[in-house]
Amino acid sequence: MKKGCKFGTHRVIEPKGILPQPAKVISNDMAIYDNEILIDVKTLNIDSASFTQIKEEAGGDEAKIKEIMMGIVKDAGKHKNPVTGSGGMLIGTVAQIGPALEGTTDLKVGDKIATLVSLSLTPLVIDEILEIRMNIDQVDIKGKAILFESGIYAKLPDDIPENLALSVLDVAGAPAQTAKLVKPGQTVLVIGGAGKSGMLCLYEAKKRAGVTGQVICLQHSDKAKDRVMDAGLADDFIVADATDAVDVLRKVEEVTGGNMCDLVINCVNIPNTEMASILATKDDGTVYFFSMATSFTKAALGAEGVGKDVTMIVGNGYTKGHAEITLQIMRESQTLRDIYESLYA
Amino acid sequence: MKKGCKFGTHRVIEPKGILPQPAKVISNDMAIYDNEILIDVKTLNIDSASFTQIKEEAGGDEAKIKEIMMGIVKDAGKHKNPVTGSGGMLIGTVAQIGPALEGTTDLKVGDKIATLVSLSLTPLVIDEILEIRMNIDQVDIKGKAILFESGIYAKLPDDIPENLALSVLDVAGAPAQTAKLVKPGQTVLVIGGAGKSGMLCLYEAKKRAGVTGQVICLQHSDKAKDRVMDAGLADDFIVADATDAVDVLRKVEEVTGGNMCDLVINCVNIPNTEMASILATKDDGTVYFFSMATSFTKAALGAEGVGKDVTMIVGNGYTKGHAEITLQIMRESQTLRDIYESLYA
Ligand SMILES: NC(=O)c1ccc[n+]([C@@H]2O[C@H](COP(=O)([O-])OP(=O)(O)OC[C@H]3O[C@@H](n4cnc5c(N)ncnc54)[C@H](OP(=O)(O)O)[C@@H]3O)[C@@H](O)[C@H]2O)c1
Ligand SMILES: NC(=O)c1ccc[n+]([C@@H]2O[C@H](COP(=O)([O-])OP(=O)(O)OC[C@H]3O[C@@H](n4cnc5c(N)ncnc54)[C@H](OP(=O)(O)O)[C@@H]3O)[C@@H](O)[C@H]2O)c1
Repeated sequence: MKKGCKFGTHRVIEPKGILPQPAKVISNDMAIYDNEILIDVKTLNIDSASFTQIKEEAGGDEAKIKEIMMGIVKDAGKHKNPVTGSGGMLIGTVAQIGPALEGTTDLKVGDKIATLVSLSLTPLVIDEILEIRMNIDQVDIKGKAILFESGIYAKLPDDIPENLALSVLDVAGAPAQTAKLVKPGQTVLVIGGAGKSGMLCLYEAKKRAGVTGQVICLQHSDKAKDRVMDAGLADDFIVADATDAVDVLRKVEEVTGGNMCDLVINCVNIPNTEMASILATKDDGTVYFFSMATSFTKAALGAEGVGKDVTMIVGNGYTKGHAEITLQIMRESQTLRDIYESLYA
Repeated sequence: MKKGCKFGTHRVIEPKGILPQPAKVISNDMAIYDNEILIDVKTLNIDSASFTQIKEEAGGDEAKIKEIMMGIVKDAGKHKNPVTGSGGMLIGTVAQIGPALEGTTDLKVGDKIATLVSLSLTPLVIDEILEIRMNIDQVDIKGKAILFESGIYAKLPDDIPENLALSVLDVAGAPAQTAKLVKPGQTVLVIGGAGKSGMLCLYEAKKRAGVTGQVICLQHSDKAKDRVMDAGLADDFIVADATDAVDVLRKVEEVTGGNMCDLVINCVNIPNTEMASILATKDDGTVYFFSMATSFTKAALGAEGVGKDVTMIVGNGYTKGHAEITLQIMRESQTLRDIYESLYA
């Protein structure tokens, strides 16, 4: 059995020498290296920005979506959307464990796991697409995938249904980071707060900001308003288009009495929302960009352009304990669990 | 005289309603609005990532560079490089001040200033390109520009030559952020540390990390090694290609005794260096991406892909006091001033 690199560089075909995530093409040969884990894949959870793009390209047609997805994997050896650059994650069953991992992993063959590394770097074979759950970005397949030695995963718990776990684990980085960033008494805005990552962020923000804090949800329509407010996820609800920075500025000014926000969390799935996030933040405040549609230069030059001294953080999909924190929310709040079961599972 | 918006939205032609920086086309009509400042431009300092791209596109040919630059301004009303999305800054003389600014600005007609907002949002007219200083990204022009009410600027000091001030002010955000981020005893790596922003970061890092800290400069050749080490800017010098993440990892491991870095500052002017920055950082450490060639998704997914819990910061070109901090370095260190005068002025 061949010896593999911890990061999976041995699988990179083009361009040579770089890591699997930035690579254009990786090998999805399903004969494992000595430090790899083979997974029988059950379901893919496609990243929201990626799936939105694929659905648009396919004009909503299911056969065309299948074709696009099969094409991506055929070309790249992984499901990295060439337009958005993003991936998603998967659940499945451990089928084989490389001998070099014995003693270092707590996994055994037959364990059900969710991979917590992006599909944009995961060697994947799709034999067949069985079912597409259009509204929750989930796709059941017959296929196999490889987890590298440095790859992170979570064992699926018994007390939370698989599809629900998959849905929330996909965005686990966001609530976990929120938990770290929010301090008591702060004003926090979640842009796209009624979305899948958004509601988890609102929940953590409410918990941390406490009774002296103010948590605001921003959506471009009020269709989710009752759901969010009835669940007690936010103190205020703003209806605005996040691409209209000046309108967002005006409405956040209104609802914060001109004080603006200590922390703005961007959870949208569309481009050109950097400026709204920046303008909604106080000087010396923080913007946390979880959205994969964020442009680095738009954020950097945007803040400079309006002379705004804000700390802007790139939403790292991983932070310690993110899976536990997120699954715990589903145990802690029956209200939220009901919402996520009905919307995303 | 027409009343303008603080952020300059009144100048945006396409797409309507957004801010001048993300806009594709803005008006460079030089009749000012009531809250604008008109500047007689002397010199443009083109952002390094942008100028590198333009020089490449022009195959180094001066006439072709002029043509590309004139073309950018003609199409967009500003010097926003359509490939890199970035701008740069300028120096010039205040020619007219909108009446709405009276009493709120300390400027008067005739003052020499550097604008500290990006050229990517600054209405600009180039009548003629007088001289291109190829190696320092500076272009003398005959032309005019507009500063918006929210636009920041620095009055040029008497004790520092104009071209030198322009050069260092262009990258002022980087050393000012370094000053805020580095704590005594920390290990700090500056990737592209021998460049214009890099050396200023090294200088601030050395000062803040102190004798118990370790400051490392990484460059892809050793041609700047003597300059950096003789000036006492770094404790260690690594020669590696920043696009080769695995090689950088290995070399940083070596020089830090396997401990890796508390803070990595990325000051390169080329793409695909996100992974090297992430791998060189300790768990719980920070990566500060000053490079405009940074890709948001490559950073976010890259960190997740290797399960690395690092805080990644988008290099905001502005932070309070950044101009003063940077000009002060030129007063404090004669060694560095000599280097910058010979290289960038
Ligand atoms: N950084 C990471 O590691 C990581 C990991 C996973 C996902 N992500 C990213 O996180 C983002 C959110 O993911 P998600 O699963 O939470 O997506 P989601 O459930 O689709 O949520 C997106 C939210 O944004 C709202 N929205 C869309 N356009 C808007 C506009 N113009 N103004 C205001 N609100 C708007 C949506 O409202 P409607 O439903 O009304 O349209 C929705 O509530 C995506 O960009 C995804 O790529 C990042
Ligand atoms: N965030 C902001 O607001 C802001 C504002 C201004 C500028 N910037 C950005 O900051 C970056 C640096 O600007 P600068 O003026 O300091 O540029 P610079 O003087 O050209 O410095 C770039 C440095 O990177 C080194 N480098 C290039 N390729 C490398 C590689 N493969 N491996 C290792 N080192 C490499 C260069 O070495 P050689 O000289 O040997 O090639 C040089 O030392 C640019 O991307 C610019 O766009 C950002």
